[in-house]
Amino acid sequence: MEFSPLVEQLIESLRCLPGVGRKSAQRAAFHLLERDRRGANELAEALQQAMSEVGHCQQCRNYTEQELCTICQSPKRQAASVLCIVESPADLMALEQSGQFHGRYFVLYGHLSPLDGIGPEQLGLNLLEQQLIKGTTEEVVLATNPTVEGDATAHYIAEICSRHDIKASRIAHGVPVGGELEYVDGTTLARSFAGRTSMD
Amino acid sequence: MEFSPLVEQLIESLRCLPGVGRKSAQRAAFHLLERDRRGANELAEALQQAMSEVGHCQQCRNYTEQELCTICQSPKRQAASVLCIVESPADLMALEQSGQFHGRYFVLYGHLSPLDGIGPEQLGLNLLEQQLIKGTTEEVVLATNPTVEGDATAHYIAEICSRHDIKASRIAHGVPVGGELEYVDGTTLARSFAGRTSMD
Repeated sequence: MEFSPLVEQLIESLRCLPGVGRKSAQRAAFHLLERDRRGANELAEALQQAMSEVGHCQQCRNYTEQELCTICQSPKRQAASVLCIVESPADLMALEQSGQFHGRYFVLYGHLSPLDGIGPEQLGLNLLEQQLIKGTTEEVVLATNPTVEGDATAHYIAEICSRHDIKASRIAHGVPVGGELEYVDGTTLARSFAGRTSMD
Repeated sequence: MEFSPLVEQLIESLRCLPGVGRKSAQRAAFHLLERDRRGANELAEALQQAMSEVGHCQQCRNYTEQELCTICQSPKRQAASVLCIVESPADLMALEQSGQFHGRYFVLYGHLSPLDGIGPEQLGLNLLEQQLIKGTTEEVVLATNPTVEGDATAHYIAEICSRHDIKASRIAHGVPVGGELEYVDGTTLARSFAGRTSMD
């Protein structure tokens, strides 16, 4: 036995959300039908608008419904000589929230993964190289994830930078602030040792 | 710093789903924008259709976009003399999937809870009484949850039944099949003891 066609359709459609299976979809559908029809209608509208209008920034590839995103539109940011490369818009947001970086960004949407058919083109590295050629960039900070693929991607981009005589740097990896050494894994400890800085 | 207005609006709207906070909403929004725009558009349509068209069955109060739900439309079900009362459509579905019951249902959408302003009227007990008066029902099975409120609701409905000379029964509560006695809580064990049946 199934629910009525429209309820079934709603439950099945909710499964397009990440981590939502049949039971959670059912729970969500009932919650919306019973308690938040207005919120559901607003969600429907927000989905339609975002899906049809949100594209990528022409310069940094971040999500935006305009040609350039807010960061790329800011003259102050544009004048910056440091470019930070991240894997996803969520990473960009995390860096922005730390408040330490005031330069430009470039979003890869993933990392090099030849087996999955993700090469330099899919990561927009042509677009990145075009920007490096312009000559306004003095340093590229590679903030890809500290995974094998993220490291490989960082090395690949560092090579592009060296071809254009641009300094490439990698964010530091080590013991998280507030963490306890006892519970940090060996690889992280090794990297934090190798990356030790002078205390003078 | 925030994302672009449409992306922000999408993230905020996704929070109307139960158990979805800012981070999960962000993750879902990026997932849809990056990998499943078609699914998102289908979800938007399903939401709009369901919210505007799905109402309650005139007879059992289950969700349906028609006047009567599929169960109430079935002549076989209509001829049944047993009526099962559940708290939610999800409970109804769980009972249907067990395949043991072939009678009619009635959905309360909750339980009596005077402090929250949920009285007999909110649970549709007038509608239920009207159906009992018709005289086609011989037994009412009370399948509300085994909680204090569920039990109170069951007792309240059992009283209505006795006023109309209809037999009221409660589903059995006890040790779940496949469960181990050692790990079952005391209240459940006590109820399973009190509800013991003869093995003849």
